[in-house]
Amino acid sequence: MPVNLSNPLKKSLLPVKGVKLGFAEANIRKPNKKDLLVITLVEGSQVAGVFTKNRFCAAPVQVCKEHLGTNPGVRALVINTGNANAGTGATGLQHAIDTCKGVSAILDLSPEQVLPFSTGVILEPLPVDRILSNLGKCIENLDEDNWLNAAESIMTTDIVAKGYSKEITVFGEKITITGIAKGSGMIHPNMATMLGFVATDANVSRIVLDSIIKYSVERSFNCITVDGDTSTNDSFILMSTGKSETQEIALGTKEYELLRDAITEVSIQLAQAIVRDGEGATKFMTIKVEAGKDIDECRKVAYAIAHSPLIKTAFFASDPNLGRILAAIGYAGIDDLDVDSIRLYLGDALVAENGGRASSYREEQGVAVMKEPEITVRVMLNRGLANTTVWTCDFSYDYVKINADYRS
Amino acid sequence: MPVNLSNPLKKSLLPVKGVKLGFAEANIRKPNKKDLLVITLVEGSQVAGVFTKNRFCAAPVQVCKEHLGTNPGVRALVINTGNANAGTGATGLQHAIDTCKGVSAILDLSPEQVLPFSTGVILEPLPVDRILSNLGKCIENLDEDNWLNAAESIMTTDIVAKGYSKEITVFGEKITITGIAKGSGMIHPNMATMLGFVATDANVSRIVLDSIIKYSVERSFNCITVDGDTSTNDSFILMSTGKSETQEIALGTKEYELLRDAITEVSIQLAQAIVRDGEGATKFMTIKVEAGKDIDECRKVAYAIAHSPLIKTAFFASDPNLGRILAAIGYAGIDDLDVDSIRLYLGDALVAENGGRASSYREEQGVAVMKEPEITVRVMLNRGLANTTVWTCDFSYDYVKINADYRS
Repeated sequence: MPVNLSNPLKKSLLPVKGVKLGFAEANIRKPNKKDLLVITLVEGSQVAGVFTKNRFCAAPVQVCKEHLGTNPGVRALVINTGNANAGTGATGLQHAIDTCKGVSAILDLSPEQVLPFSTGVILEPLPVDRILSNLGKCIENLDEDNWLNAAESIMTTDIVAKGYSKEITVFGEKITITGIAKGSGMIHPNMATMLGFVATDANVSRIVLDSIIKYSVERSFNCITVDGDTSTNDSFILMSTGKSETQEIALGTKEYELLRDAITEVSIQLAQAIVRDGEGATKFMTIKVEAGKDIDECRKVAYAIAHSPLIKTAFFASDPNLGRILAAIGYAGIDDLDVDSIRLYLGDALVAENGGRASSYREEQGVAVMKEPEITVRVMLNRGLANTTVWTCDFSYDYVKINADYRS
Repeated sequence: MPVNLSNPLKKSLLPVKGVKLGFAEANIRKPNKKDLLVITLVEGSQVAGVFTKNRFCAAPVQVCKEHLGTNPGVRALVINTGNANAGTGATGLQHAIDTCKGVSAILDLSPEQVLPFSTGVILEPLPVDRILSNLGKCIENLDEDNWLNAAESIMTTDIVAKGYSKEITVFGEKITITGIAKGSGMIHPNMATMLGFVATDANVSRIVLDSIIKYSVERSFNCITVDGDTSTNDSFILMSTGKSETQEIALGTKEYELLRDAITEVSIQLAQAIVRDGEGATKFMTIKVEAGKDIDECRKVAYAIAHSPLIKTAFFASDPNLGRILAAIGYAGIDDLDVDSIRLYLGDALVAENGGRASSYREEQGVAVMKEPEITVRVMLNRGLANTTVWTCDFSYDYVKINADYRS
């Protein structure tokens, strides 16, 4: 079950002026499930995106990148679950384009003003006819207050729908930020989660949006991992409609920082939600690596720990088998690492120093920390000033079960 | 259960002239288990070794490296299971040295003529007294015909004892090669398995032995992975006693190649046995990556596949979810990879080409291959002449169970 993750039903997702969402049950892979979503943006909106670095990037990702570079601006997004349209060659590319054409024809846009997204099984032909024949339904129920339905429409193996809203006051006026995302396996920080969409009614230029998306992704979706597998479809989209009452927010101002930090907070909440609902997750782990020479080596150590099946299974068992963490630090790839200067903490307990177990450490301390659903591992490298944080989850029977059963 | 791995009981391990082995139940972690082994080598023997690159390398590994560099030559090895003596600081180092001293005192050697090895739990103090008080028992039952007992003495979570013998004829005389090894988690090819020991009665110099160990490790222990975790204690030792009836075998001769290939065969058998008995393994997977620009990129692709939890769980489920393999190829780290030129085979079936599913592929083909306990995945990169092969196993409920329970 997801770790400390409440359903966004409980706290309502706030509408964002200028953004409408409509959904349908298109029977793409399974019946009786919302699996198709259209998002429309008011004229004059700005859109920025970051995408998977996987060389087998899916057809819709290729089309997205192309359409984001063109004018006039993007006015609609179309997202299907149940099929990733990845590893589908030239036919897949045509299907993605046809989907954009389907949306643009109904909404009287050009196809380049539509961004397509797909998530689900790889290497199977997209049932494009089912998408095309259900676009009308999505557009019929377009509504500013459909964010929860939207969050539910993009779920695959997610147990809980993921969404988060935040309001800030800028220039004395209210700005709203609302985002949704889906996980929950094939998650590794080489760009975003599988899919994340964040919208705001702030009035900003594309340059400001590009700057904010880079900043927030580095601190959110690029800091999570479930299983180390980078998906073919990872996409994170940031949209602004400019429909709040405020004047334009410029780079480098105090207002810019307010907005940037609020969007980053929404992104972190969504990214952490993906980990909390990671396939089979029973524990939420925060890995902090501090006092490294640079961010790169801090990330190497953090991901060596976060990706180790031995560590993840020990956390699943609530077993403070901390030697496995030392081993992961040792093979993380820092060639000149002096193991004697490292300090390892589990929660607040100092576990290891001087190349061995800390003399003050007692097994009871480790056992107590391990019982908690949220655990922090802190590694002090003591060789510099760089720090990093990575979030991950444990590795359970259910991870195996879910992934052994996924196609069936 | 181990995949197609017969117990070495069934085919007897052959004695190697000049090598004796003795064991004891020292109660290091659990009672009623052989957990201490001494191997002695006749005077004039040569010994070569390769060791883990983990920066947290265990105390015995540090001592081994030092002793291998000294004269006079190594005459004894002492191996315990149940405790890795890793992450144990200065005390651990002293324990490893004390163990060598204990052996050397009984056998009338200098401590530098003894190599120590430990495997088991990390970050716990080595119960050195139990080792010292049981060395006498090991030495009492030293025997040339104790290889199977030796293989059993070094097991931890291994289900099956691992050993292999081969005889070759060189200069008209018989040469014997026998090896033992232990796995079976924390296996990643950054030097050898956790522990491997291969002995021959061939008459060779240390230079020849160093040359052969590098050749054979690159083709055996460095081609396997169970979970991608590089142990703190990985060690592979090659020993020659010169006690066969043959003359000395020199570098670059036909006889050298014969011996090198036979030792490589023994090493491959042991390395594959570790994968076949990988924790929770139900499938033995051979990953071949061909026609790459260089070995390095072939290995990147092979290990991306071999380490992917999503692929390993799909193989456990006998589910030909082949899109996950394409995704792994895509994120392996080859920046200029042209996915359209790749061909992917499962067994003999062409699965993907031109960036998508092969038009000739039928799901039944994938299902048929997946039912087998041994499966070959072949990736043709079609951009060069380099090839590589990696062996791994699937990821099952039992992997999680074994590693969640390991310390209890």
